Amino acid sequence: MRATIMYGPGDVRIENVPDAQIKEPTDAVIRIIRACICGSDLWPYRGYNEFDENGQPMGHEAIGVVEEIGSDVHHIKVGDVVAMPFAFSDGTCPHCQAGIHTSCLHGGFFGNPQVGGAQAEALRIPQADGTLVTLPGGNDDALIPALLTLTDVMATGHHAAVTAQVAAGKTVAVVGDGAVGLCGVIAAKRLGAEQIIIMGRHDDRIALAKDFGATDVVSERGEEAWEHVRKLTNGLGVHSVLECVGSDLSMQTALNIARPGGAIGRVGVPHDVNIPAAAPTFFRNLTISGGPAPVRAYIEDLIPDVLEGKIQPGRVFDQTVSLEDVPAGYKAMDERQSIKVMVTP
Amino acid sequence: MRATIMYGPGDVRIENVPDAQIKEPTDAVIRIIRACICGSDLWPYRGYNEFDENGQPMGHEAIGVVEEIGSDVHHIKVGDVVAMPFAFSDGTCPHCQAGIHTSCLHGGFFGNPQVGGAQAEALRIPQADGTLVTLPGGNDDALIPALLTLTDVMATGHHAAVTAQVAAGKTVAVVGDGAVGLCGVIAAKRLGAEQIIIMGRHDDRIALAKDFGATDVVSERGEEAWEHVRKLTNGLGVHSVLECVGSDLSMQTALNIARPGGAIGRVGVPHDVNIPAAAPTFFRNLTISGGPAPVRAYIEDLIPDVLEGKIQPGRVFDQTVSLEDVPAGYKAMDERQSIKVMVTP
Repeated sequence: MRATIMYGPGDVRIENVPDAQIKEPTDAVIRIIRACICGSDLWPYRGYNEFDENGQPMGHEAIGVVEEIGSDVHHIKVGDVVAMPFAFSDGTCPHCQAGIHTSCLHGGFFGNPQVGGAQAEALRIPQADGTLVTLPGGNDDALIPALLTLTDVMATGHHAAVTAQVAAGKTVAVVGDGAVGLCGVIAAKRLGAEQIIIMGRHDDRIALAKDFGATDVVSERGEEAWEHVRKLTNGLGVHSVLECVGSDLSMQTALNIARPGGAIGRVGVPHDVNIPAAAPTFFRNLTISGGPAPVRAYIEDLIPDVLEGKIQPGRVFDQTVSLEDVPAGYKAMDERQSIKVMVTP
Repeated sequence: MRATIMYGPGDVRIENVPDAQIKEPTDAVIRIIRACICGSDLWPYRGYNEFDENGQPMGHEAIGVVEEIGSDVHHIKVGDVVAMPFAFSDGTCPHCQAGIHTSCLHGGFFGNPQVGGAQAEALRIPQADGTLVTLPGGNDDALIPALLTLTDVMATGHHAAVTAQVAAGKTVAVVGDGAVGLCGVIAAKRLGAEQIIIMGRHDDRIALAKDFGATDVVSERGEEAWEHVRKLTNGLGVHSVLECVGSDLSMQTALNIARPGGAIGRVGVPHDVNIPAAAPTFFRNLTISGGPAPVRAYIEDLIPDVLEGKIQPGRVFDQTVSLEDVPAGYKAMDERQSIKVMVTP
């Protein structure tokens, strides 16, 4: 089968690899209907992450059709249209039961030599019963983009909002106007935020953020941005910050625009980030939370809003490529010519 | 009047100072009935904090009788027996309304040249209406020690428990067996924790922690302590950690014994603490919260439990000294001959 393999920064190739197949009785194999390229795929593409030099299979978000199941799979059936969260999980261990599926005792992540990646024709899914979510409307072309976002970016934006304690009437800032930040705006709006400040500098993304419910825009960087946010909030700062980047600059911004007692929900994988222990964190009673989104815990809650059209996170896709054109998709996202690229294998 | 002034590490003196008096119409002056020495007073005593070399008035916890009020004080009356939280606050600004009185827009802290300290015969109280809490039973000798703890250590232990998200059925670890840690045990028990692991190494304190509700004791340090906690929790770690010290060792312990999705409520003022941004914090979805306890937000909730004898935080006092003997009290706490010293001016 054909699959996407990264060999080095900027070096993404579509290659023939052995067909995905069942290895464990709890596995399933899915044929990928839609996959996508993630902002986090750009970290290794830009040389910021270590990865397997023998070639790293890429992709961790997909909707697919179940082609085969192992002998110990009982809830997923061949032919089901399913969503595949970026992490696999058994759904039964204490951490899954507590809603932290990304720390499943028998879990792991997609997009590596051990498990394979979703930017491919097919993929083996470990812990299929726990991992996969059967999708009503999963074969409705109009709904697929939005459903696809539930496997990562929309659920990740939601996680940022939940861990930032967004609630009705609160004042919220979203740091980052990438696909996750834009989904964070949707999530904040959905949870009842009164004021939603999008912090970003790209016109097309800002326009989409406004469509999604952003009430204010802050395009400065560093201390000028902090001042602007304070001005927009009567000098108080925001209750909730969704930190959707993972850089030190974005984290310092988050810490400095949160009001005392405020919360930061961070979902950008941290790269060289410093969290000061005393000021402003401790002395302002800030809460720092977040991490890899336990997508599996949220996906079923979010599906109805997608099916009813209440949220339209599928709009973050502004380009679609075939599997063979995935390298061009990486380039487009790297050069910010695209917010998020969908892949049709 | 007589008051406690610190001139340098280990150099605490009782001196004549100008009488406390009204400066602002929102002030009151209280005569101190009981004060105490705080674990945080030991940081400058041991040379770990900068402070005013011209002499720093000490003490920030007291119960007193109102002797005089300014022209703009309306809710506190002369003769009231009152508790004085370690921070003053107006009670009306947005941060006070949100329960973060330690960040009051018109607030500040006791125990400095501007405001004076409570280890003294009398003290000026800024923002008296917002700051002071009139105490029922405040002149009952048997209740005074417990009520006195509400001005700092008991409310601080409670803040640690609240920000560590302690709730019914949860597994909790308390890092530190000082007065705040011991009150943290009380708070965790009061909030319904099922398992409470006290982490400390002093027999008298451990015995008190067990009386207060600790179910397990971990006396090792560093990685051995982490292993012991994991063993006590089926390898999972605890849901909630009350970090009641403020050292780097205690923080690393807190981070490494929390289970995925767990929360750390930190109330020990951080001294040279490193909070790693990625592992284990981000990848385990840990929540780091806490800060200076907004005592004023909690004190009225805790008073009924003290009056009914449901909680007995006054037991953390194991020594009482006169004002003239305050230097000996510092020495006793510094040498760990006393958990917490009460002062009777």
